[in-house]
Amino acid sequence: MDVAEAVEAVRAGSRLALARLITQVENDTAVGRAALDRLFPFTGRAHLVGITGSPGTGKSSLVNALARELRRPTPAGLERRIAIIAVDPSSPFTGGAVLGDRVRMRDLAGDPGIFIRSMAARGALGGLSAATAAVSQVLDAAGFDVVLIETVGAGQSEVDIARLAHTTLVVESPGMGDDIQAIKAGILEIADILVVNKADRPGVENTERALRTMLELAKNHTAEAAWLPPVLRTVAVQSVGVEDLRQMIEAHSEYLHRTGQWQQLEAERLRAELDHLIQATLVERWRRALPSGALDAALTALAQRKISPHQALEDLL
Amino acid sequence: MDVAEAVEAVRAGSRLALARLITQVENDTAVGRAALDRLFPFTGRAHLVGITGSPGTGKSSLVNALARELRRPTPAGLERRIAIIAVDPSSPFTGGAVLGDRVRMRDLAGDPGIFIRSMAARGALGGLSAATAAVSQVLDAAGFDVVLIETVGAGQSEVDIARLAHTTLVVESPGMGDDIQAIKAGILEIADILVVNKADRPGVENTERALRTMLELAKNHTAEAAWLPPVLRTVAVQSVGVEDLRQMIEAHSEYLHRTGQWQQLEAERLRAELDHLIQATLVERWRRALPSGALDAALTALAQRKISPHQALEDLL
Repeated sequence: MDVAEAVEAVRAGSRLALARLITQVENDTAVGRAALDRLFPFTGRAHLVGITGSPGTGKSSLVNALARELRRPTPAGLERRIAIIAVDPSSPFTGGAVLGDRVRMRDLAGDPGIFIRSMAARGALGGLSAATAAVSQVLDAAGFDVVLIETVGAGQSEVDIARLAHTTLVVESPGMGDDIQAIKAGILEIADILVVNKADRPGVENTERALRTMLELAKNHTAEAAWLPPVLRTVAVQSVGVEDLRQMIEAHSEYLHRTGQWQQLEAERLRAELDHLIQATLVERWRRALPSGALDAALTALAQRKISPHQALEDLL
Repeated sequence: MDVAEAVEAVRAGSRLALARLITQVENDTAVGRAALDRLFPFTGRAHLVGITGSPGTGKSSLVNALARELRRPTPAGLERRIAIIAVDPSSPFTGGAVLGDRVRMRDLAGDPGIFIRSMAARGALGGLSAATAAVSQVLDAAGFDVVLIETVGAGQSEVDIARLAHTTLVVESPGMGDDIQAIKAGILEIADILVVNKADRPGVENTERALRTMLELAKNHTAEAAWLPPVLRTVAVQSVGVEDLRQMIEAHSEYLHRTGQWQQLEAERLRAELDHLIQATLVERWRRALPSGALDAALTALAQRKISPHQALEDLL
């Protein structure tokens, strides 16, 4: 693959070139790195929106409905191109099946203004969030106006991905017990907008009340924040409430720009990316310079308790 | 704090010295590192048991009941010392409250053979699992026979901590919907023993059946494994089933020793620890050698899209 040609094709809107280039970027190949380098000047325009929540909240349907809503022309007649990255970090050992893919394809296939990509967990620590960051940069440079990043669960991966997004939605649904709410305490702190999906189900008031109570509790920690996360109701499969949700996402984007937080998020993201690159490069250079067998010898001595980890470190560096 | 004295006091069984030394190790101070170095030859004896599961499963009560059960003398009249590490990674931003601490203190306080320590999430990536690993080494060297490591949730943190433990219990309880089961798909793959706690509640058969079905599904991926995770019922607050659980944990330990997997886990753990140390040290050395202002200049150029992250990397290394 010729890097210059690939980059040009991606910038010109070729979906095939885009899909191929993303694979290179995901696998962190030399071509992928060179392409990211060339695409970098064109990044920084897209609105990155993270969507997280437990399985069963109808999160994938909501992402689909939101993508369709975002595709409607703006009042000024502008048409937006939408990308979806579906991230499934739930199964670190088998690679994991990405949920809801078939439904998604049925709903959205055929719209040339929507591009969908699934990503599963890799072995490397921090690997998934780094790969997601790189792929969203490609989509940004390819001219997508909004990148929807969908993740499952409430773990560190979600927090890392939230740090990547400008706007983070946390999706709930009625009928989950109070026990389950507790697990969300950490996730609530990263929410810019809370969505109670399946809002036509019984118990929607209870869920809303529980979320508002938790927001009140969380407010103590973020007294200085001017943006109070709203709680919205949707019924994604009937597209109910999805227009309001789009407007709220746009309002959040305006808020970030007005307060200078958009630029600040951008700076933090670039800094985190640079930190990650530096760390990976330092380790790789050290590994290449290491005499063969040195690491194995140190590990054997360690296992026999002949040396300590810090002594092994001194020997190896 | 004098390192040699602290290590000697910890080895002699002083709880105060142990608590203080753990604080040093948690904060990664020079004293903490030096102490870990001196304690290292005495590690490798303790059985590390991880316990994970959602809030509401009665996991903390189960850990307490298990600690009491493990304190009963063995048939040969041996008494075991038990340590508990309660890890709460749920709230990465505020530090998080560690659940169930008061109940725990009421249940177990006064037994000099039980030592309890709570840990909350730190900012650093991989920080919590590295700190948990270091603290469990101190407890191991301090002569605790079993270290129970309790974590909440189903994220990357739990998987990292499971990699640390010899034996991992995953705790469920009846009455959680099928939706909730789905989130556990990743967690089930790390389970050596599954426990349905609160087994006196309605729905216990359904929960057991759901778990067995998921185990069947997971088996395809691990056809070579000879240990089939058993599903046990407990009612922790009445100590029902807890003796069987202890026996199963011991059976798993025997299985690991018999098949050579204990040693293999040990080697993997030491390797991961060494990797982490090397990575952190390389980054720190590089940072110290960097001219002041160089990083800020690179970040500014990045934000203005004058250079790409890879170009910034070249400039900085």
